[in-house]
Amino acid sequence: MTLEAIRYRTGSLQILNQLLLPHQTVYDEIRSVQDAFEAIKSMKVRGAPAIAIVGCLSLAVELRAGAGGDDPVTFIRESLCHLTSARPTAVNMGRAARELMEFAENESMEKNPEPLKESVIAWIEDMLERDVNDNKKIGNYGAQHILSGVPRDSVTILTHCNTGSLATAGYGTALGVVRSLHSLGRLKRVYCTETRPYNQGSRLTAYEAVAEGIPATLITDSMAALTMREMNITAVVVGADRVVANGDTANKVGTYQLAIAAKYHGIPFYVAAPSTSCDLSLESGRDIIIEVRPPEELTSINGIPIAAPGIEVWNPAFDVTPHQLITGGIITELGVFLPSELQAALTGRLTAL
Amino acid sequence: MTLEAIRYRTGSLQILNQLLLPHQTVYDEIRSVQDAFEAIKSMKVRGAPAIAIVGCLSLAVELRAGAGGDDPVTFIRESLCHLTSARPTAVNMGRAARELMEFAENESMEKNPEPLKESVIAWIEDMLERDVNDNKKIGNYGAQHILSGVPRDSVTILTHCNTGSLATAGYGTALGVVRSLHSLGRLKRVYCTETRPYNQGSRLTAYEAVAEGIPATLITDSMAALTMREMNITAVVVGADRVVANGDTANKVGTYQLAIAAKYHGIPFYVAAPSTSCDLSLESGRDIIIEVRPPEELTSINGIPIAAPGIEVWNPAFDVTPHQLITGGIITELGVFLPSELQAALTGRLTAL
Repeated sequence: MTLEAIRYRTGSLQILNQLLLPHQTVYDEIRSVQDAFEAIKSMKVRGAPAIAIVGCLSLAVELRAGAGGDDPVTFIRESLCHLTSARPTAVNMGRAARELMEFAENESMEKNPEPLKESVIAWIEDMLERDVNDNKKIGNYGAQHILSGVPRDSVTILTHCNTGSLATAGYGTALGVVRSLHSLGRLKRVYCTETRPYNQGSRLTAYEAVAEGIPATLITDSMAALTMREMNITAVVVGADRVVANGDTANKVGTYQLAIAAKYHGIPFYVAAPSTSCDLSLESGRDIIIEVRPPEELTSINGIPIAAPGIEVWNPAFDVTPHQLITGGIITELGVFLPSELQAALTGRLTAL
Repeated sequence: MTLEAIRYRTGSLQILNQLLLPHQTVYDEIRSVQDAFEAIKSMKVRGAPAIAIVGCLSLAVELRAGAGGDDPVTFIRESLCHLTSARPTAVNMGRAARELMEFAENESMEKNPEPLKESVIAWIEDMLERDVNDNKKIGNYGAQHILSGVPRDSVTILTHCNTGSLATAGYGTALGVVRSLHSLGRLKRVYCTETRPYNQGSRLTAYEAVAEGIPATLITDSMAALTMREMNITAVVVGADRVVANGDTANKVGTYQLAIAAKYHGIPFYVAAPSTSCDLSLESGRDIIIEVRPPEELTSINGIPIAAPGIEVWNPAFDVTPHQLITGGIITELGVFLPSELQAALTGRLTAL
């Protein structure tokens, strides 16, 4: 089985409410852009690719229901602007918004409102299909690259956060690599961190692994270095919220620490991300704005207090891993590249596995 | 105010039940060695020094109540053996047991049962007082050593787990250093990790900091490297469950990862531990047996499930930090030593600040 986190049929969108996982499997209806904004903001849906696809699909649903009237371009612009503001660190929504806006404006030159809406809906539906296919390519490229270093053995992977079907349009990025290794019969085991404070690892990655029979072991974030030393980890593979021109990568907080520990142990460190998560407009990771989230994410779980009352909290949601620590490579749907090759690869000046 | 985690008056022992902190402040009566064994095993009391002192005090209470009869030496031996088995990684209980046993055997050469019991009780009461004084020395030596590198500025410390009044006979080791810096007016802030899976940081260290007005910020374990990069950390100071002859140190899982990150950022890494936590009988950290604890510590909090049902778990309680990463030094009640100096210092061949 493959988890269906996003259920879309023309005119109808439902998302698996990730706030209730792993204990309850509840699909929430998304009827409007505002529904999607709230789902993204509250993290019912999360993961940069999934945010973008759900945001755009919500726009398709509203357009199908008649929104936009005689001026769909204005409606589309305002909707995309609103959606982009829900989680500013995730680059995919911003990129999808720019591309879709450009497409809609071009179409509006020659089309009336209704055919224009149909074109935009088709563009969005195509985006969904393309994203799933891109993830499968990422999974296969990543698996091949990792296996090229160990021609016969099974491999043991360490991953962080959730980057699977629940975080993407489907299949996953870093967890897609794990899925591909598993389907090739070459995965010995994946270690997944809890990923505090939001527990994406223990709730979501663990849920996907159990659901699909992938051999997986949960550890706390603090056990990663010990796991690297004791468990013969072949590679560390993580996702990305944003990869910038020099290869610096913003991802879930804790990624930077994992990369330092991987370097110390001589274990290759990979970032798996579709090219849509790459933002060549930023030179280096210093330019990335890091979202700071509410203290309550550390001080309570499901509303139950777990920390001493009155303690101050710092809760940055992401950190930036400098490109020097990405020693395995950046796995995209175009192939696996060193950080130094990324810019050329994405602008068509380099092709590589 | 200083937290009173162990309340002892001749013949009576109460401990602050740490399983209920920070939400409830409940003292549990310890009437017997078996009560202490259970309190240690269930982690109502934790921290290697506190385990030793509570274990020995429970024996004093039983002896005062008449236990041991005409053969107190046998009773003492069996009690100490039992207490040592409750948390085998913590070396202090084993050391206290050996020393106390040797003392009791020597006394038994020349004393009848009743005077022998009085001598043993006095030895244990002296141990309590000595431990608190040793911690204050550790705090002062550590603070002076850290401040010697920054003659004028206030300092920012990062610590892990709980090593304060709640983990020791009183005052604390690593948190004792923080207390000393604070009382000197030189502490800008301490960052404390949650310390998953048992949350000693968010429950206990945060509780002590709030109670005493020490400026403190809680972070997840995964944020430590980012905190080192962003928050101008002066030094990382942690405690130890066991320091062996070459300076390798077993401490709460996650310590190894912190030491790697500190090295990467050029931040001095200190271990604060009384000489009673040093075990020169082991050559290196490879010889330390690491306790693996139940999966439920990761998969639930206060009995409420937080992880996907069915996921496998690895839950090592400790890790070993190799001496090369202990760049600041090992802070003991005798002074601050490099790992390479430790053996000579503890055997009286070296004195140093």
